[in-house]
Amino acid sequence: MTPPSAPDDLDFIQPWFLGPAAENDQLLESLVVEFLRDYAYWRRNFHPEDGFRISADARHRPDFLGVQARTRAELHRLSARLKRAVPVYHPRYVGHMTGDLLLPGLVAKLVTTLYNPNNVSEEAAPVTLEMELEVGEQLARMFGFSTEEPASPGAPSGAPVVAWGHLTSGGTVANYEALWNFRSLKFHPLALRAGCDAIDFETGPVGPRDRPLGEYDTWELLNLSIDDTVALRRAVGAAARERLGTRFHEFASAVEAERIETLGTAGFFLKHRIEPPRVLVSSAAHYSWSKGMKVLGLGTGQLEMVAIDDHMRLDIEDLRRRLDRCRDERIPVLGVVGMLGTTEFGTVDPIHEIVAERERRRAEGLDFGIHVDGAWGGYLASVFRTPEGGWREQSEMKVGYTYFPGDVVYGAFTAVPHVDSVTVDPHKLGYVPYPAGAFIARNRDVVDFIVQDAAYVFDVETDEPPSTGEKLHNLGQYILEGSKPGASAAAVWVTHNVLPLDRDGLGRILRLTIRACETFWDSVKEHAKEWEGRVRIRTPFEPDSNLICIALNPEGNTSVAEMNRFTRAVFRRMRVDPDKPVQVMEFIGSYTSMSRRNLPGDPGDRILADLGLDPRTFVQVPEDPATEADHLYILRHTLMNPWQLGGPDGVSYIERYWAYLGEVIEEELAARDR
Amino acid sequence: MTPPSAPDDLDFIQPWFLGPAAENDQLLESLVVEFLRDYAYWRRNFHPEDGFRISADARHRPDFLGVQARTRAELHRLSARLKRAVPVYHPRYVGHMTGDLLLPGLVAKLVTTLYNPNNVSEEAAPVTLEMELEVGEQLARMFGFSTEEPASPGAPSGAPVVAWGHLTSGGTVANYEALWNFRSLKFHPLALRAGCDAIDFETGPVGPRDRPLGEYDTWELLNLSIDDTVALRRAVGAAARERLGTRFHEFASAVEAERIETLGTAGFFLKHRIEPPRVLVSSAAHYSWSKGMKVLGLGTGQLEMVAIDDHMRLDIEDLRRRLDRCRDERIPVLGVVGMLGTTEFGTVDPIHEIVAERERRRAEGLDFGIHVDGAWGGYLASVFRTPEGGWREQSEMKVGYTYFPGDVVYGAFTAVPHVDSVTVDPHKLGYVPYPAGAFIARNRDVVDFIVQDAAYVFDVETDEPPSTGEKLHNLGQYILEGSKPGASAAAVWVTHNVLPLDRDGLGRILRLTIRACETFWDSVKEHAKEWEGRVRIRTPFEPDSNLICIALNPEGNTSVAEMNRFTRAVFRRMRVDPDKPVQVMEFIGSYTSMSRRNLPGDPGDRILADLGLDPRTFVQVPEDPATEADHLYILRHTLMNPWQLGGPDGVSYIERYWAYLGEVIEEELAARDR
Repeated sequence: MTPPSAPDDLDFIQPWFLGPAAENDQLLESLVVEFLRDYAYWRRNFHPEDGFRISADARHRPDFLGVQARTRAELHRLSARLKRAVPVYHPRYVGHMTGDLLLPGLVAKLVTTLYNPNNVSEEAAPVTLEMELEVGEQLARMFGFSTEEPASPGAPSGAPVVAWGHLTSGGTVANYEALWNFRSLKFHPLALRAGCDAIDFETGPVGPRDRPLGEYDTWELLNLSIDDTVALRRAVGAAARERLGTRFHEFASAVEAERIETLGTAGFFLKHRIEPPRVLVSSAAHYSWSKGMKVLGLGTGQLEMVAIDDHMRLDIEDLRRRLDRCRDERIPVLGVVGMLGTTEFGTVDPIHEIVAERERRRAEGLDFGIHVDGAWGGYLASVFRTPEGGWREQSEMKVGYTYFPGDVVYGAFTAVPHVDSVTVDPHKLGYVPYPAGAFIARNRDVVDFIVQDAAYVFDVETDEPPSTGEKLHNLGQYILEGSKPGASAAAVWVTHNVLPLDRDGLGRILRLTIRACETFWDSVKEHAKEWEGRVRIRTPFEPDSNLICIALNPEGNTSVAEMNRFTRAVFRRMRVDPDKPVQVMEFIGSYTSMSRRNLPGDPGDRILADLGLDPRTFVQVPEDPATEADHLYILRHTLMNPWQLGGPDGVSYIERYWAYLGEVIEEELAARDR
Repeated sequence: MTPPSAPDDLDFIQPWFLGPAAENDQLLESLVVEFLRDYAYWRRNFHPEDGFRISADARHRPDFLGVQARTRAELHRLSARLKRAVPVYHPRYVGHMTGDLLLPGLVAKLVTTLYNPNNVSEEAAPVTLEMELEVGEQLARMFGFSTEEPASPGAPSGAPVVAWGHLTSGGTVANYEALWNFRSLKFHPLALRAGCDAIDFETGPVGPRDRPLGEYDTWELLNLSIDDTVALRRAVGAAARERLGTRFHEFASAVEAERIETLGTAGFFLKHRIEPPRVLVSSAAHYSWSKGMKVLGLGTGQLEMVAIDDHMRLDIEDLRRRLDRCRDERIPVLGVVGMLGTTEFGTVDPIHEIVAERERRRAEGLDFGIHVDGAWGGYLASVFRTPEGGWREQSEMKVGYTYFPGDVVYGAFTAVPHVDSVTVDPHKLGYVPYPAGAFIARNRDVVDFIVQDAAYVFDVETDEPPSTGEKLHNLGQYILEGSKPGASAAAVWVTHNVLPLDRDGLGRILRLTIRACETFWDSVKEHAKEWEGRVRIRTPFEPDSNLICIALNPEGNTSVAEMNRFTRAVFRRMRVDPDKPVQVMEFIGSYTSMSRRNLPGDPGDRILADLGLDPRTFVQVPEDPATEADHLYILRHTLMNPWQLGGPDGVSYIERYWAYLGEVIEEELAARDR
């Protein structure tokens, strides 16, 4: 518990947020009014000679006044109902992954909403679409991907890989896109081969083994890297263009007919007699992964939930065993997903070990995509980056923290440049309004596998094939969604510009959230001592970032079901009740649960032992609900509010939380004794 | 060309929008400032005893001033770039499906963005989640679905069907949800049967034929209606609960293991030896349908593009032929999609005939879902509704229009109550900001087939099973997306409240857009006469709603490729150039193309004949690009701006458009002669 040598300066955050008591209300208002007027007067520059469609005296007409009154009344009704909204902006809110908004991004969002651009294509949003692609590049650079355009635009093979990224409605959709991209790439080589076969076309030497395509076997073609797949598609296409001349369209249709996008997963797997591909993800991952497997028709049966260790991180040994089996049984692996901050526990998977594992597997002929789900923790990469674009040394970083970053966390973040794609949510640790998720791909040429045709939004006029950079201006062609708010792009763009994605920019704010978590963690140990003999208070696993969970068990109780009941009763006081004014609440928290299914034997038993619980009451299928349970119900604290460390009268909100939690525990213990 | 007897009153729209010259700027500003302050002061009601985290003198500190200056500078840079945004709010914009915003919804959006609620669950958004469900009910009622809660909550079979709806990021995602819902329902009966078989459980008589489940054959189980599937699942579950007692969970896991969501499409179809199911949709449908087939792993090969007739509407005869084949070859039909206003052409499919066709097919043992893609035209249903909740008579409606609503259009809209689900985009004809799509289902019990598990956002405490209405408050469990903006729900909610979804509410505004289209249509005929002998100007198909396309062909030209070149040159003057100030533009339009693939032989040839074109130059695979083309390039006009009919000096914007178009045509004709 060495205090960090750099002080936890809370002053510097003062101009960045509206503040818990809307302290910066005048700043917000002056900005909003200025740009609202700017917008209104912008309208007047478009054909001023047209004059006004609404005359100045219209506003005195009874019908006009009537509508105005109705509008105002309805907005008052909205505002009245919103009084019961959740005060997520306040340091007393330690619940879900939402907090106060960064002022610059908030104003950008409000202002751009007036213009209402639709980032589906440049035609509808020339300004904000460009911002979205810039934002994608900023995020890509934060993760260590290259965004430098190649010197000569046409350079085919050996050309440097360029990343791209775009916004989504949220991390869920970004995760779907990862699966969709991986699937599209994974099965393309087989479609190429089948298409060539169908028209009896021989490619000549192509691909990583420099052999005619027909001489690659199915397993080889299922185990090309993404970069090799991109290169293979180009090489086969070039060969077809050269040798088939005007018959090229026959080749193109033959390949199209063989794609998994055309045949469907069922038709494709049946035709090639291959096992449906597996996706491997930590069993602590967000439920959007199983939702995605269902939506994409891959099936949750093909989602392998890799065991977690006692840090709630993906267990690399279990991953190895599963990869062994896939290799031995020739089951294609679509991808391995590493969590950069699980939404449940805030824990970080060992991305570097996943990357190293893939290197080893490649030598065995087994290849797969790696996706990082950093919906929550992705932005923490900014803490690791210098303003010059480099990675900070672990030893230098440690100076500002008590524990952070541990070896696994440091290794994980600095390995992200080697993965294929990343999900990150600007509407979480980017502190911008909903909706703003993002999908970032290391190699932007993956879009050629995703492209759609859409007659009405995209011009069919193509004298010269556009460059990849130009193509992306028809964004709707390359993403899962269609119409999308340009205002989200503007919000993220302004945020990244005022707070660059490095240690001194956004990282400086995020550092405070990690510091709050370290302080909280230390305080658990202290308060556990205080409560010794009455209630066991434990962090069941160490926090990797800025989210911390605690478990509470009354001394003497050995039943998991009973512990859950007790903790639920405690939590009930910190949960939002839609029928109750929020103003009566002291703190607003959240809970989560650790399921026995994911913690069979160790490490589950170790956690139970620490809490004084009987492992026989922690079961996969409870038969006696009075004593047994299939999950451990624990309190979850998301510490994304930067004011956590500085409370009224010098007492931090973390200490105030403990004071409140203590009261609640006392009351619930008393209720239990009655 | 009888003018409508009701006058086209433009005055009444004056208080509803900001106006082409921001005439209502003071109204907007006063509302925004009022509710911005209201919001700021709301913050101060949460633990006022905590005092201020940002002291009053902080704003004088150099670092504070520095950040403030940087924020302002960055917002100025944003605002400067936004000067080149597209003036979509103006009647001179007749391009894509975006227009001015309704003031009440816009203010609601801005205000609620400050609160930043996340409608993924009630815990994060108690207020706006309820609004979202209310909005869903309002839309459901507009389409004629019932939203009345059953008298007794537990009533199992024979209970009235209740609709529900929710918002999505856009129509694309709503369309995916339709496919996902249909797939989940379609294949559940087979999973039920397989699950029962796996544990040797006999159901006793269940389902529409009142037989043990094991005695239904595969084809029968693939051809249950959605309502029958809901009832079957309940009946089998009830039988299992009654007969298996504590072994019920074995039944539940056995069924879960057999679901298509678990096995994936490939595993499921292989196991049951069934053909992948077909989706039938008009070949004029939006490209999100083929994107959806790819994303869901169903494959575009299973998307049957039904031929269109010379009104660009789904050809019911071709649909019949395709259904015959599916029936004869025992290919399951997942769904038939009817377009309520294609995005390309604004045309309306004969929904009533699709519904009637399904009735006939049910008698043959072939059943399927019907989805209506009303992303564009869905809101036009409001024009057909009385404030009392009834349907208007066609004859009564006709009084307000010259042509609208024709028999097909009237039949289509009034048949929507009989379909299973609808996509509609509030961010199109609901005039609210992006993002706001919606998915509406006639039978809300479909959510039981979609539900996910998510430990951390949803409480696992379930003493009593919640009602469907309560369950939906955990919205993220039942939808494709996760985190989502509550601000969108507030915007739609306020809009629907001030402008109810009937003839006198939103319908009154939408009526003007249809009137603008009728006026435009009439004007085409007039201007075609003017240009006779120089350029053939035609509407290649009649407009069904408020979107109209025109084709231009210089007299004497018989080549489609040449016509396309000419029209492209004309359009180039009406397309946004990101490098050019928009203020120099006269009108901003859009284009679309009619593809030969979708118009083989008639009706394509009829359209060509009318334009004086040689059908031999309209081909599926052009060999000579100088004369042949696979598409007809036409100008497309979206007339959603309600000010279209009233231009400066009494000359409507439609007439001004013709004046401008005339100039451009003259110049391009001259360029052609050079």
